[in-house]
Amino acid sequence: MNTAIKSQKQLARLDQALDSGTLADISGILADLSPGDAAHLISTSPPRSRDLLWNLLEPEQEADVLNELPEELRSSFIESMELTDVASLVGQLDDDDIADILQELPEEVTSQVLGIMDEADRARVEAVLSFSDDVAGGLMSADTITIRADLTLDVVLRYLRRHSEIPQNTDNLVVVSRNDRYVGILPIRTILVTDPNVSVREMMVTSREPIPANMPASEVARKFERNDWISAPVVDDEGKLLGRITIDDIVDVIREEADHSLTSLARIGEEDTFAPALQAAPRRAIWLGINLLTAFLAAGVINMFQGTIEKVVALAVLMPIVASMGGIAGTQTLTVLIRAMALGQINRRNQIWLVGREALVASINGILWAVIVAISASFWFNDQTLGLIIACAMLINLITAGVFGAALPLLLQKLGIDAALAGGVVLTTVTDVVGFLSFLGLASLFYG
Amino acid sequence: MNTAIKSQKQLARLDQALDSGTLADISGILADLSPGDAAHLISTSPPRSRDLLWNLLEPEQEADVLNELPEELRSSFIESMELTDVASLVGQLDDDDIADILQELPEEVTSQVLGIMDEADRARVEAVLSFSDDVAGGLMSADTITIRADLTLDVVLRYLRRHSEIPQNTDNLVVVSRNDRYVGILPIRTILVTDPNVSVREMMVTSREPIPANMPASEVARKFERNDWISAPVVDDEGKLLGRITIDDIVDVIREEADHSLTSLARIGEEDTFAPALQAAPRRAIWLGINLLTAFLAAGVINMFQGTIEKVVALAVLMPIVASMGGIAGTQTLTVLIRAMALGQINRRNQIWLVGREALVASINGILWAVIVAISASFWFNDQTLGLIIACAMLINLITAGVFGAALPLLLQKLGIDAALAGGVVLTTVTDVVGFLSFLGLASLFYG
Repeated sequence: MNTAIKSQKQLARLDQALDSGTLADISGILADLSPGDAAHLISTSPPRSRDLLWNLLEPEQEADVLNELPEELRSSFIESMELTDVASLVGQLDDDDIADILQELPEEVTSQVLGIMDEADRARVEAVLSFSDDVAGGLMSADTITIRADLTLDVVLRYLRRHSEIPQNTDNLVVVSRNDRYVGILPIRTILVTDPNVSVREMMVTSREPIPANMPASEVARKFERNDWISAPVVDDEGKLLGRITIDDIVDVIREEADHSLTSLARIGEEDTFAPALQAAPRRAIWLGINLLTAFLAAGVINMFQGTIEKVVALAVLMPIVASMGGIAGTQTLTVLIRAMALGQINRRNQIWLVGREALVASINGILWAVIVAISASFWFNDQTLGLIIACAMLINLITAGVFGAALPLLLQKLGIDAALAGGVVLTTVTDVVGFLSFLGLASLFYG
Repeated sequence: MNTAIKSQKQLARLDQALDSGTLADISGILADLSPGDAAHLISTSPPRSRDLLWNLLEPEQEADVLNELPEELRSSFIESMELTDVASLVGQLDDDDIADILQELPEEVTSQVLGIMDEADRARVEAVLSFSDDVAGGLMSADTITIRADLTLDVVLRYLRRHSEIPQNTDNLVVVSRNDRYVGILPIRTILVTDPNVSVREMMVTSREPIPANMPASEVARKFERNDWISAPVVDDEGKLLGRITIDDIVDVIREEADHSLTSLARIGEEDTFAPALQAAPRRAIWLGINLLTAFLAAGVINMFQGTIEKVVALAVLMPIVASMGGIAGTQTLTVLIRAMALGQINRRNQIWLVGREALVASINGILWAVIVAISASFWFNDQTLGLIIACAMLINLITAGVFGAALPLLLQKLGIDAALAGGVVLTTVTDVVGFLSFLGLASLFYG
């Protein structure tokens, strides 16, 4: 049995069913899918099919599929549901997932959901909700199995058997002191291979540092990545165990972080791929509007040199080249910095070096392309002055792009402004303005 | 003890040590770091410090740190080492990591490393090496613990205790038939909580589909993400178990995929953030060169309308606005598509719908900004004809940008061309050319 072929056949059947509209077929196939696959199917369908598919889910699938849906789509489904239905659906999930979803919902739904939970669960969810979702505390769940160091492994094993269910992604038990202070971890594979008469104290790992609840989510993600963790204990300022973070939530953090850099630089914001046009258009319109303002600013610069352009029309032909090269070089540098900042690679030690390196790269490429552009322009318009002017302007603009593209994100970060979001607009405005100003300005000096 | 403060102190001490150059201090601090943290420290240091730090590592740290370094930096360290040193270092790692590294190395190093391994290890590494690293087979390791379905859990437990070491990230044992065919998985947490007299057959999970060895890495990553897996068994075409893939390798795949879209769109390629200027400059120069060619193409279009521009210089002032808005709108659409393709969201069912949606978004925003630009331009230059011309050109360019930005990546994908890499250049060339051509072309009709 080849499973790839099997799921392709399933998808082909689903395609057919969606086309021909035999609802019983569709719901039969949907019922066989894992929650993640069903959520993927729904989120990659155009708006109309989405509602159809959602309504065809088996009632016992709904909670898990809801949990796997992208945030924005989930919110739109929840908006169209009755409050009590939302509460009962969400209430079926694990406490960290409940907290995740509640963070997106209005106050009244939150209290309704909390109302139907039993006291212990509610306390756990409220503990997670007390943290913002971009720090460790907001990512954690409270389903940690804790043990004491003075037990033998045999007692731990018997305790686990009585417990009967171990939460998903449990690779370690957490060892705590009498007052719930974090002491160390005991990998469950150690329990499996060790003589049951040995004590937890002898086998536990104490070198593993716990995650402070207020550590930023991105830093937590990098710790997981660097150390290949599956789960990690979370503690408060006094070292008291609060819960644990698991790799599945970290994968989401990594995905979202990377996505943020990409969508910010492309000026689309965090968009649902299959949102209807009337929902997608206004968000992009805002960015187009900001770009229009900066484009008018650049046009204003050109406008100052109308007289010079009238004399030498070749300037109008060549000026977009200077601006365009500056924009590309600046975006290259900006992206290197934004990517490094997102990966936590920038620190006091290396940032000055980086700005210097970018200035050097810009100078090297500036000289190279200035020479090539100068030769091309001189021959094209048979005018060596023009070649000289465009070479100088190109060099000025590329060095500006390099230095500014490296310094700007560092500066924005210091000011607490999201560099990925604001950087691109500010930078291309600068490279456009400097590009037109240097080229046309120099030309007006030479041609009068 | 607050661990965040502790590691900040460690870093501050390291900063000081690096500044003042007391090597004994530095190597003392390095010796305390996990391999991942040491690799991070090295990779975020400027080139000179990198070599210094690498040489200060304890010999027993080197293999693990090497394994955690980014690919490019690792290769540069390996190039400067003796072949036999490389072989003995790499030979200390797990077989999937060995395969990963060998894939980057020249043939002679590979055979030297394989030569010093024992036969069983070599066979396992060669099995992984026989697959490209962008399919499941290339990601797997062969450290799977396999069991038969007819054993009791008690026998399994005793077998594990004799084994004494269970590989990292082992959440499941894999159940195979007599001829090594995949049958199912047995979660180790099930072993912990179940009566030892029960058989594997009764407790194993058979609904979990194994990963075919030729499944693309990106698809494997999406399966892990959707199903929150820690590890997954890999099988060949006949269902024979080959090995397993673990979440730590999947996290790398996700990081690399996201990084690829970002660096391609920004035209920097896969660059080492702290590469020396002479290494970074040529790669970016190539992209600047390609951009220069397309910018000259756009300049050629403007050149055709020299006569019209001489008559109405305001055209030169306004023409970059039309091109710039097209470029932004096109990049927005292109990024939506490239991101969706990277996330595996595009299929036969939804791609026509998406192109249509983008055309609609482009039309809505095209009309909106055409009207605003028309009014602004009419007032600025007191010329309503000019307003009408720029409105038409803007609408034409934004709709072109929307339709082309959506269709282009789908087309490139069909042709087997990397849409993230080639898409941006092709698209902005089109929006520049269409922008200048429509604006100046219409102007030449009106102004003669």
